[in-house]
Amino acid sequence: MQSYDFLLWLAIILLFTKLFGVATARVHLPQVVGALLAGVLLGPSCFGIVQGNDFIFKTAEIGVLMLMFIAGLDTDMTELKRSGGPALVIACLGVALPVLTCGGVYYLFFGGALTKTTLLKAAFVGVVFAATSVSITVETLTEMGKIKSRLGTTLISAALIDDIIGIVVLSFISGFGDESVNTGTVLLKIVLFFVFVVVVGIGVYWLFRLITVNHEKSRRIAVWGLAFCFVMAYCSERLFGVADITGAYFAGVILCNLSQSRQFLARKMTVASYVLFSPVFFAAIGLRTNLRLLGTDILVFAGVLLVVAVVSKIIGCGLGARLCGLSRRDSLGVGVGMVARGEVALMVAQKGINAGYIDEAVFPAVVLVVVVAALITPVLLKLTVGNAPDASMVG
Amino acid sequence: MQSYDFLLWLAIILLFTKLFGVATARVHLPQVVGALLAGVLLGPSCFGIVQGNDFIFKTAEIGVLMLMFIAGLDTDMTELKRSGGPALVIACLGVALPVLTCGGVYYLFFGGALTKTTLLKAAFVGVVFAATSVSITVETLTEMGKIKSRLGTTLISAALIDDIIGIVVLSFISGFGDESVNTGTVLLKIVLFFVFVVVVGIGVYWLFRLITVNHEKSRRIAVWGLAFCFVMAYCSERLFGVADITGAYFAGVILCNLSQSRQFLARKMTVASYVLFSPVFFAAIGLRTNLRLLGTDILVFAGVLLVVAVVSKIIGCGLGARLCGLSRRDSLGVGVGMVARGEVALMVAQKGINAGYIDEAVFPAVVLVVVVAALITPVLLKLTVGNAPDASMVG
Repeated sequence: MQSYDFLLWLAIILLFTKLFGVATARVHLPQVVGALLAGVLLGPSCFGIVQGNDFIFKTAEIGVLMLMFIAGLDTDMTELKRSGGPALVIACLGVALPVLTCGGVYYLFFGGALTKTTLLKAAFVGVVFAATSVSITVETLTEMGKIKSRLGTTLISAALIDDIIGIVVLSFISGFGDESVNTGTVLLKIVLFFVFVVVVGIGVYWLFRLITVNHEKSRRIAVWGLAFCFVMAYCSERLFGVADITGAYFAGVILCNLSQSRQFLARKMTVASYVLFSPVFFAAIGLRTNLRLLGTDILVFAGVLLVVAVVSKIIGCGLGARLCGLSRRDSLGVGVGMVARGEVALMVAQKGINAGYIDEAVFPAVVLVVVVAALITPVLLKLTVGNAPDASMVG
Repeated sequence: MQSYDFLLWLAIILLFTKLFGVATARVHLPQVVGALLAGVLLGPSCFGIVQGNDFIFKTAEIGVLMLMFIAGLDTDMTELKRSGGPALVIACLGVALPVLTCGGVYYLFFGGALTKTTLLKAAFVGVVFAATSVSITVETLTEMGKIKSRLGTTLISAALIDDIIGIVVLSFISGFGDESVNTGTVLLKIVLFFVFVVVVGIGVYWLFRLITVNHEKSRRIAVWGLAFCFVMAYCSERLFGVADITGAYFAGVILCNLSQSRQFLARKMTVASYVLFSPVFFAAIGLRTNLRLLGTDILVFAGVLLVVAVVSKIIGCGLGARLCGLSRRDSLGVGVGMVARGEVALMVAQKGINAGYIDEAVFPAVVLVVVVAALITPVLLKLTVGNAPDASMVG
């Protein structure tokens, strides 16, 4: 006889993540915040109703892979090529500064001896704060009628590139995680990984083109696309020691070139994700965030980390934008608009705790900073660019 | 560190179930047959590439619940009320005869002493062959231009009712499975289950009406609908000792009354089901079907069971149709059209092996009969009603 508890847990997760998501959306906060909150309330921090077991965590893993796959599929290559130049500069500075400074903060608080492990742990905390979550900013800018302005388009392209850079940095760091191999081997494996992505990418792209002739919107696209995502995730981990979410993301980037099937595929993946997998993923983060572990020292760390995470992003991206010739006001807008962290940050953090780079005690602080950064972005954005008139306003 | 094997297994399952499904569809056979075949090939019968572990079986369980939930959602109450009379007679006779005769065949082969366990096992094998799978027949009749004829509409309504009757019979039999309680308690629990379904049904229906005002097609419908399906499945098993698939089915029947949201909900569930869950479900059946266990005696049993399963359905339904005044030819058509068994039969069979009512050795025979019955239905249908002219032909 099998146990049916997992059904009840899934039901509770679905009910409460959506309930809290709807509630946070009503006060113009991202639904992700509500879903995380639901996880925290259901987990060991508060009521301890749902236990995170093997099945829940595997389902959450599929959830994160699907989200990364969709993020890859949503890559707009045309827009990327058009506004690529300035966006690249903004993204590079906007990744470098937070990684260095946030990693530095971790090292200051928990560092000690300068070993490989300590450096990796610091780097991991830094990488968590590399990738921007642009969805909140997009929503705020749309509300303010500034989404089609130069500020808006530059921001979106930069956020896209900073995802890619974040993922590449992550692949390096996770590659170095294996203690048994030396630096040369790791570098070789990472190079081979990117060769693998390109070669498999070209092959699979043409294979999909071939099998989707007259079936651009058939179920087989969705099923095989998801299978490809899983294979890439598996190969990343097993063959190259690179994080599985990196593989899933590149699977999406490869298939985003299927102009006929891309949207269909993204839509089907989105449905499968939101009805079950992504709620479980966000709840699982909450389940793992034991706020009872937040002692005074960890809270102080979280406070400092928050300030550094926010300021480093504003300075990094703002400086990049200024270098590319944006006005002082727009540069500030770009910097502030990139402050929000979201899904990708949480995914990297979860990867970190799975792989042992983020300690149990530090994890709640990291999640807290991600959430608070996301929450203050709309407020900061309205304060900095809210009242300026804009020629390209679309209402 | 966690294992990533489950990702590879999922990918292999998705790839091959769809590949074989597409292949069988090309030769006008149901895709389910292809998916089952893929499972058999990947499993212990042939190559043993994929191992059915806890995660795979739990995912398969969600798959079967989703399929039953969708079946419930697809209940067309209006059509049911319209052609309910004759359809009810056909369905009742078409369930009673196969249950008795197929159960009888099991008893003849493996019976022995007339104990409660033996009777339950026989009854379970009987119930597997209770529910018709109308999809194959619908496809064949559509091809033949007879789907809108009296034969067609009667057939569809009868198949719908025979699902419900099959599920009710299943709930009785699974209720009796618990050795520790006596018959009176079981009957009371089953009665209480149906009271529970009605009371919860009315409450949840109004609750959904309330929360879906202005949100008839919002994501929350899909998420909470699925949560409700899981809760009903859990409560059926835990509170009433009734099969979880019964609960999932009635969850669908309850929500099928939401005229605004029903189709939206069914569509989203269908996507979530076909991209991952139902392939895993069908593959899992294949994985559990060890054809190496098919000795001569089991093959003889399968042969006899096949003949009885086919003939009893033709006679039962045909007799019912004749009693309701259909012509001799149409009655034969109804009987033959109901021969095919499909998803529901496989779900009941899986339930049986989970709960210990269907033995490891008998399971492959049962699956084999279900598949072969599905395969021969279109052929039989064309032989019996193929050449008759029909006034209501729609081409």
